[in-house]
Amino acid sequence: MSKKKIAVVLAGCGVFDGAEIHEATFTMLSVAKQGAYYECFAPNIKQAHVINHITGKEMPETRNVMVEAARISRGKIKPLNDFNSFDFDAVVFPGGFGAAKNLCSFAFDGIDCLVNPDVEKVVKSMVEAGKPIGALCISPVIIAKILGDVTLTIGHDKGTAQALENLGAIHKKTTHGEVIIDEKYKVVTTPCYMLDAKIDQIADGADNIIRIILGMVD
Amino acid sequence: MSKKKIAVVLAGCGVFDGAEIHEATFTMLSVAKQGAYYECFAPNIKQAHVINHITGKEMPETRNVMVEAARISRGKIKPLNDFNSFDFDAVVFPGGFGAAKNLCSFAFDGIDCLVNPDVEKVVKSMVEAGKPIGALCISPVIIAKILGDVTLTIGHDKGTAQALENLGAIHKKTTHGEVIIDEKYKVVTTPCYMLDAKIDQIADGADNIIRIILGMVD
Repeated sequence: MSKKKIAVVLAGCGVFDGAEIHEATFTMLSVAKQGAYYECFAPNIKQAHVINHITGKEMPETRNVMVEAARISRGKIKPLNDFNSFDFDAVVFPGGFGAAKNLCSFAFDGIDCLVNPDVEKVVKSMVEAGKPIGALCISPVIIAKILGDVTLTIGHDKGTAQALENLGAIHKKTTHGEVIIDEKYKVVTTPCYMLDAKIDQIADGADNIIRIILGMVD
Repeated sequence: MSKKKIAVVLAGCGVFDGAEIHEATFTMLSVAKQGAYYECFAPNIKQAHVINHITGKEMPETRNVMVEAARISRGKIKPLNDFNSFDFDAVVFPGGFGAAKNLCSFAFDGIDCLVNPDVEKVVKSMVEAGKPIGALCISPVIIAKILGDVTLTIGHDKGTAQALENLGAIHKKTTHGEVIIDEKYKVVTTPCYMLDAKIDQIADGADNIIRIILGMVD
């Protein structure tokens, strides 16, 4: 039997303007530990902005989402428009503000956000293929914006949960490591750092969501 | 009993010009999982250079080691010159080229390298205090340059092992997850990505080295 193949979509490198590094790294670790294979993708676009992670302030720089994401994947990464649902058994979106800044504009525009067209194509093509989609932390907002009536979780942040409901989604409150499964769309979500979490709780969340996703793959 | 405290010294963010992200993240995870507490430090200095992690080419940019390292630690980081051996039970250096470019200049100057003075102070003060020092991947070169006659491992890369011996160190060949302990200096090393490794082997290496280090702490 050939290994199950999981695409991991990265939104840069660093919680405040890119992919959350722990969530991304533990997603990759969980896939490998559980005997599957991962490949990383990112949109080949400019970051929304660059944030100094100590001060929280914007830096007068421009960085590329895919080039920075390659720091997490040790250089091996593909542009997201190369993604083909035929090649993968599932796709996973780790969180971090990059998911809400670079993959869609939720962090700036709320529910009126735009979604990166390649991200939208990935999600829609996986739904069409009947293959699972995982989303950690804030990434479920992307899925809600694209699919509408999907059941998911971002933990228990009231404002974000309300925004998800305003997008037509059904939000389920969760705590550390819990996973919500939408059977219709095969969308699987877990809150990670949307909660005030410790690093080992993030690793547990990643293990849980990847176990469930791999279990959904024939 | 209060929690054991481990300082983690980061050299930036990304394998080719900073701290190796998986090694750094798994070090932090292992400390937390094993019931101890970590705090991250980095020198507040300019990176040696910035590498595009897809092409491997230098980028015409300047970045700060501590500011970039804060991406891995989610913003919580202290300048390395604030480190006091009195406050910690052990110190750990994850690897990545940053260890050999920003913490010392081994990647450019080989055994004639200079070591960042704050890094040297950290290592010497921990040896003086009789407290363990962990080094992953390429980081053992820093320790060899400072201490000389220390027993350690960088896996089985012949050139690097020879350089360590030329610095007065004793090199022990190792494979995935193996840890070498120098009882005299309390220096503990493991090869990680100095070997052609999979991500779950890095997690194992981090778990092993942290378990041994915590076991050495009274």
